[in-house]
Amino acid sequence: MPGTLANESHVDVLIIGAGPAGLMCANGLSLAGVNVRIVDQRPDKVPAGQADGIQPRTIEVLQSYGLADRLLREGNQLHMAAFYNPGPSGGITRTGRAPDVTAASARYPFETTLHQGAIESIFLDSMKSRGLFVERPVAPVALEWSQDENQLQDPTSYPVTVALKNLSDETQEPRLERVHAKFVVGADGAHSWVRKTLGFAMEGEQTEFVWGVVDTIPDTDFPDIRNRCAIHSPNGSCMVIPREGDMVRLYIQLTDSQIIEAGRLNKGKINCDQLLQVARKSLKPFRIEFPNPIDWWTLYIIGQRVASKFSMHERIFIAGDACHTHSPKAGQGMNASMNDTHNLIWKLTQVLRGWSHISLLKTYEFERRKYAQDLIAFDKKFSALFSTKAQTDEDPDGVTHEQFLEAFQTFGGFTSGIGIHYAPSDIVNPEGQSAASKLIVGQRLPPQILLRAADCRPFEIQDLIPADTRFKILIFAGNTNDTQQQKRLFTLADQLGGDGGILIKLAGAAYGSVFDIISVSNSSKEDVNYTDLPAIFRTHWSKVFTDAQEVAGLRGGMAYKSYGISKDGAVVIVRPDGYIGKVTGIENVNSINQYFSSFMIMQSAMTLHDS
Amino acid sequence: MPGTLANESHVDVLIIGAGPAGLMCANGLSLAGVNVRIVDQRPDKVPAGQADGIQPRTIEVLQSYGLADRLLREGNQLHMAAFYNPGPSGGITRTGRAPDVTAASARYPFETTLHQGAIESIFLDSMKSRGLFVERPVAPVALEWSQDENQLQDPTSYPVTVALKNLSDETQEPRLERVHAKFVVGADGAHSWVRKTLGFAMEGEQTEFVWGVVDTIPDTDFPDIRNRCAIHSPNGSCMVIPREGDMVRLYIQLTDSQIIEAGRLNKGKINCDQLLQVARKSLKPFRIEFPNPIDWWTLYIIGQRVASKFSMHERIFIAGDACHTHSPKAGQGMNASMNDTHNLIWKLTQVLRGWSHISLLKTYEFERRKYAQDLIAFDKKFSALFSTKAQTDEDPDGVTHEQFLEAFQTFGGFTSGIGIHYAPSDIVNPEGQSAASKLIVGQRLPPQILLRAADCRPFEIQDLIPADTRFKILIFAGNTNDTQQQKRLFTLADQLGGDGGILIKLAGAAYGSVFDIISVSNSSKEDVNYTDLPAIFRTHWSKVFTDAQEVAGLRGGMAYKSYGISKDGAVVIVRPDGYIGKVTGIENVNSINQYFSSFMIMQSAMTLHDS
Repeated sequence: MPGTLANESHVDVLIIGAGPAGLMCANGLSLAGVNVRIVDQRPDKVPAGQADGIQPRTIEVLQSYGLADRLLREGNQLHMAAFYNPGPSGGITRTGRAPDVTAASARYPFETTLHQGAIESIFLDSMKSRGLFVERPVAPVALEWSQDENQLQDPTSYPVTVALKNLSDETQEPRLERVHAKFVVGADGAHSWVRKTLGFAMEGEQTEFVWGVVDTIPDTDFPDIRNRCAIHSPNGSCMVIPREGDMVRLYIQLTDSQIIEAGRLNKGKINCDQLLQVARKSLKPFRIEFPNPIDWWTLYIIGQRVASKFSMHERIFIAGDACHTHSPKAGQGMNASMNDTHNLIWKLTQVLRGWSHISLLKTYEFERRKYAQDLIAFDKKFSALFSTKAQTDEDPDGVTHEQFLEAFQTFGGFTSGIGIHYAPSDIVNPEGQSAASKLIVGQRLPPQILLRAADCRPFEIQDLIPADTRFKILIFAGNTNDTQQQKRLFTLADQLGGDGGILIKLAGAAYGSVFDIISVSNSSKEDVNYTDLPAIFRTHWSKVFTDAQEVAGLRGGMAYKSYGISKDGAVVIVRPDGYIGKVTGIENVNSINQYFSSFMIMQSAMTLHDS
Repeated sequence: MPGTLANESHVDVLIIGAGPAGLMCANGLSLAGVNVRIVDQRPDKVPAGQADGIQPRTIEVLQSYGLADRLLREGNQLHMAAFYNPGPSGGITRTGRAPDVTAASARYPFETTLHQGAIESIFLDSMKSRGLFVERPVAPVALEWSQDENQLQDPTSYPVTVALKNLSDETQEPRLERVHAKFVVGADGAHSWVRKTLGFAMEGEQTEFVWGVVDTIPDTDFPDIRNRCAIHSPNGSCMVIPREGDMVRLYIQLTDSQIIEAGRLNKGKINCDQLLQVARKSLKPFRIEFPNPIDWWTLYIIGQRVASKFSMHERIFIAGDACHTHSPKAGQGMNASMNDTHNLIWKLTQVLRGWSHISLLKTYEFERRKYAQDLIAFDKKFSALFSTKAQTDEDPDGVTHEQFLEAFQTFGGFTSGIGIHYAPSDIVNPEGQSAASKLIVGQRLPPQILLRAADCRPFEIQDLIPADTRFKILIFAGNTNDTQQQKRLFTLADQLGGDGGILIKLAGAAYGSVFDIISVSNSSKEDVNYTDLPAIFRTHWSKVFTDAQEVAGLRGGMAYKSYGISKDGAVVIVRPDGYIGKVTGIENVNSINQYFSSFMIMQSAMTLHDS
């Protein structure tokens, strides 16, 4: 390797790049107690601008790490979208308003906007509380990996070596550090050095659509300045995205084709004042002025590409913008990035702890590359719609308000992130699905309010399944006041946690660190006794819930119905990332065994081997 | 005054006693920027035990100071009450469960339990953020006040002098400080030195009921250990109050009349083990054991008394246990105390700022002494019910489950604090009430979800009226898309905030520091434009709301209906403590003028006088 005075070190996971994907990864791994380092070549985090939209599903994910409260406190919320089209007298007129989010099951039925630097701070502060900091400015200069199959299959080996250079002492002879890592995550952006070094190609194309973006606090009489607006004006298309405080982001379509020269943007052709002038014209007859400083502005061409591979030997991964680029129109960028590493965190942790086979990591590319491809397909339709002219008398082929609104709402499951559906694999097993006929294996567990049996306090079920790297085994226990049902539950309890039970075989006596068991009765709140359940289903009084309506209030009592679970009950296995992995009846214990055995390492077998 | 080396100092408000009443007062005054000091003779805050129940209304009040989040995070919630009575086979059996809180309009329909020390910490940390600390151990040793009527009527004078002694240097010659105060608040507990020095008598009596209290973590198969339980057992009455963590408080009735000797408790007659033995017997056939340390325990006789006066010349006030003692059975103690000073904070601030006449302070005793008397009357009925034996075959005169449950629910408005209703006075003016026929002038503004007009984000109306010492003027504007209604609104805006408008006369051009104006349209969320309102009703885009249902969700859209406001609109004036002071139609501006003029000082008159 180049350079002198190379220091050697070892780490379980080295993350390259401290944007949203890298920080999500570093925070999640450190929360799980994994030995992790994160480096970034930039001297500081993003000060302004960049990505800013957090989708409903991403808020749920952040909540599963205990980070949503701060996001919700600091961010702006988009509940309503307004649609403007050419009016009869030349300017624009409001054609209608519609919900900004159309995903019925969203726990947070709105988008949140907050500048990328503030979102990064949420992760940075969480990491800081555990002593983890981003090392910067530090860049990778070399990346090597073993081809030895035995080494690659051994999760305790360090088959990857990265040479890191500290950029803060440019004038001196560069000091290099050789880091030996079990795993490397390249979250180093659209121009990813890791991706290029691995030789993965970006597949896809670039459009001809050019947009300008400006963040500022405007002065206006436009009544929808705090709603998301899609404006099809005779003077060009425009999008309004209100931000935290009084800030507003304007996306402004540029029709001057001279801005693109030989497939690249010529930024010298237009300045920010000209962008604002276009915005002024687009909003007429409303008045919009820009008396305040411009916080950030840029130009971009929409490019839609996905990397050919996301992983090298399940030892080096790429995530975030390094894997996929697309238009910012539907606000997907930062969301897709954070959800990439959310998918990876628990899998790396399971393998590093020796709980799961290293092959589990194959599901990262399998799940996230397919998602990225779907995202690009969606983005093509969606951004074309935004970039097309509105229908007018002169332009009868333009898009109508009805077409636009229909598309906007059809795409709701996608734009919200709620509809993400992972295809069948070892960790997504749709067999036996009928026991909870309205849950979709491969999708995230939808929200429901349950009452805690011991004290009738309401809880959101999503808050019971935090991203703590444990699989959650939800025992929908049926009527726990019924003696026959109690017998079935005691049998299940014995098969799971009794002598030679499945959980004991899988994870040993301390299986509580691998699995979290939560029980949900459907007895009435007046009759339920948490003391009626088998001991392993109530390791603490707070682990038993009932599906009943609040003591004072209207929420709750819909879990069995909306999940499609009968009075016989069901077992629902939720992956550590909140996605449903398996559903089965409470008498079908073998299928639980088969599910976990397909990717987990039997601890009882290991003990046998060790002795 | 006694002692040597007396230092002299001046302060606007001196608070004596740093329990819940004193800390609420100190925190509220410091939040308002008032020059305040607080002293306490104890060397540290309460470590365990004592009061622990926070009622629904008190949670609303804490929320108005921004303090409820932490309470809710740290505290335990009581949603359900369970009732046990003698069963057929000798032990107890559950007769039923019922909501713990029966106040329909409660925003937080549950009680919260948390030990007094943790509640005090919430105030202490809030005060600390503004540099205010409790001076301790510091005791008052002398209290003098001026009898000069001119001085008493001048809000800028210091008519009270308190000699303070620092108890931390007992061995030395006592160092005294002579503090000259504009106002003194004695929040120094049931044995109040301030009250005794003022010569105010405690009026009322003591009962013969003796109870023991124990805080510990029990080991039990009793299924309602996390609910509030009223247990009428053949072996004596018992109450279960679950607390934070796994802690439980048990109230145990003692029937051994020898514990009272000459009207005083003889604590030597019973120890904690004997108390626990009574609890074990009362809960049979359920098992309850006490393997963990006892956090706190005590014995008490129920005494029910109210001080003859709460104020000396509106310059020295007493608050909290210094004014009223009663049984802890309905968990009122700490709540009544904090609400005493919540009532006083804004009045002191208004007078100190020169906004209101000093006579405003008369309403403190007027409102809070009547409340204390009502509390005692309620407590007599309620605690007698708890101390009476259950009806059994041997004891046919005992109280039945039905009688008990009916009383429990009838008292809901009182036990929850939601029903507090201040009688008419300068600041509670029920004339014109019909414009909002279902609001009750003198009660707190009931919760409602509104949508913010500019972005359809839902807000709880109570969060729009924080305890920031400003009067809130709620303009229920009707249909703001209607041109006729707009005209009426522009007229109102002119009469309030135009040249020579009422608010200008009352408070000058910067009336926004005295009054906060919030507008509530009832246009649909699809049509409402915040830009349609007069400028003074939308000093920022975030000040306009509409009464509509959430974009995604079922809350909202009920404010006009549940407040009894017609499409013509109404003006609702909410006092700085959240209680409704006045309701009127939007064309009846004179009545707004009359309301404020009855206790506020016209700033335009002052300016005239100054010039």
